[in-house]
Amino acid sequence: MRALTFDQKLSFQSHWDDPAEIEGDTLIRVTQAGICSTDLEIARGYMGFTGVLGHEFVGRVLASPQKELIGQRVVGEINIVCGRCDLCLSGLSSHCRNRSVLGIDKHPGAFADLVRLPAANLHLLPDEVDDDQAVFVEPLAAAFQVLKQIQLDDRKWVTVLGAGRLGLLVAQVLRNSGCPVRVVGTQARKLALCEKWSIRSRLLSDIVPRHDQDVVVDCTGKASGFETAMAMVRPRGTIVLKSTVAGDKALNLAPLVVDEINVIGSRCGPFRQAISALAQKSVDVISLMSRRMKLEQGVQAMQLAARPDVLKIILTCD
Amino acid sequence: MRALTFDQKLSFQSHWDDPAEIEGDTLIRVTQAGICSTDLEIARGYMGFTGVLGHEFVGRVLASPQKELIGQRVVGEINIVCGRCDLCLSGLSSHCRNRSVLGIDKHPGAFADLVRLPAANLHLLPDEVDDDQAVFVEPLAAAFQVLKQIQLDDRKWVTVLGAGRLGLLVAQVLRNSGCPVRVVGTQARKLALCEKWSIRSRLLSDIVPRHDQDVVVDCTGKASGFETAMAMVRPRGTIVLKSTVAGDKALNLAPLVVDEINVIGSRCGPFRQAISALAQKSVDVISLMSRRMKLEQGVQAMQLAARPDVLKIILTCD
Repeated sequence: MRALTFDQKLSFQSHWDDPAEIEGDTLIRVTQAGICSTDLEIARGYMGFTGVLGHEFVGRVLASPQKELIGQRVVGEINIVCGRCDLCLSGLSSHCRNRSVLGIDKHPGAFADLVRLPAANLHLLPDEVDDDQAVFVEPLAAAFQVLKQIQLDDRKWVTVLGAGRLGLLVAQVLRNSGCPVRVVGTQARKLALCEKWSIRSRLLSDIVPRHDQDVVVDCTGKASGFETAMAMVRPRGTIVLKSTVAGDKALNLAPLVVDEINVIGSRCGPFRQAISALAQKSVDVISLMSRRMKLEQGVQAMQLAARPDVLKIILTCD
Repeated sequence: MRALTFDQKLSFQSHWDDPAEIEGDTLIRVTQAGICSTDLEIARGYMGFTGVLGHEFVGRVLASPQKELIGQRVVGEINIVCGRCDLCLSGLSSHCRNRSVLGIDKHPGAFADLVRLPAANLHLLPDEVDDDQAVFVEPLAAAFQVLKQIQLDDRKWVTVLGAGRLGLLVAQVLRNSGCPVRVVGTQARKLALCEKWSIRSRLLSDIVPRHDQDVVVDCTGKASGFETAMAMVRPRGTIVLKSTVAGDKALNLAPLVVDEINVIGSRCGPFRQAISALAQKSVDVISLMSRRMKLEQGVQAMQLAARPDVLKIILTCD
């Protein structure tokens, strides 16, 4: 099959081995896939991953022990879990101690013609969600995860820091929950989307952080985002960290203690809520599509996705 | 008056200016005071503080606009607040935007013959709490703060990391709340106190962190404590940070996101609960006293307090 792989460097492979069958899993022909900041971080060495990249995809089932799945259009949850460890058994299977993660950790990803996942990971797509929207299910689910982790009822001042691929999804999800969110970013073109959605936005260079936000959701994808969030959040406020960044950064955690800040790491989220929001058109993802490129152009597509003015790049596998 | 001061270096001053009166405050003659890790950090440059150190003290009121206080034995809360800012008005006065902090930030401290505080900061001591115990009210209140910030009801595995001055107080407070706490430290002599109190303890060198603790309370006072806590806490677990450490340390926050860890900074706590616990003898602080030294020996006392085998040094001002 064709695949976009990473092993010290990114390469397009015209003849790569099909993914090996793991007993009982389902084989999917990938229709298209989205490039996410985590993919860019992996290509900088994050997770020490080698192999086929990619974890945001939509495809059609080619073969499965669950015969009713065959031919269906699906998206897939990215954690491949054991179902037997203490975390799986306590309802935290997304944190399974023996997990592999699609295109991120020990499991070949979806920037390829074919991908394999357990049937339990798959979600059927309703007709209301087309293939372009479907590529956003995984990151939109991650955006919904924020709502599962913090109470926003009595919070007045909420900032989404970073107007990128993820930040613009988080902003819409929080706004839809009734929270008067503000987006702070560095790219005027991206912030213009907020205006379209009637979400307040500001350029980072135009604001002075005043330790006055009840909640700051860091979606910058940069190590510096945490420090900016610390300067914005009020004492006893909450920082939700969505960015996984490769490498260390010098940090002083004393302000976190002095101001009694609550920092919550946030990763994968509920696929069903994301599919439902897309079916109901309550979240606009199509405006986030910057460009559609062929899988063969994957290396250039990754370079393009790293540009600050670019949002979602979709890789097509036809 | 006599005072132990810091300005680039620690010095004992035999003739230092009495603290300047701030309208309406109360003048206290310090009986004795305790050395805390924060004092040691300040002497390493933390907070950029200069002047009289010290914030854990007991004394007698010499002069006050509240006449009923004169002659009373008191301890004092360390945050001197404005009562007018948004945080004071929203019930977060310990985070007052205009605050000064006794011996830590813009307010002369208690390693001196005399100290001044607003009357509202003072707590009268019952006869059941003697002067030695009273010196522990401030750090014990900080230990009680942990209980105000996290729910321990359904937590099975709780580790207090660090068997120092603060860790041994936090361990007793958590144990008294019904939580089966374990203390992990590096000094066998300090851990022996846990045995006396029937609290489980282990040497850090004897354990392998397994990402299995529901809660880790970092009381190490070291920048490395956070990383150890990250290795111990389970996915979706909680790290309570009690240590304020001067300076930066290279940190990678990605594991915090991947494991969806909750980090809570924790600082000052409720004095009344601490005084009550000491009056009821439910917390043993006397075993934490390593040595009593005169204020004149303050420089040596600070050196001694920095030794890993030493717990509380009390400076006497008589």
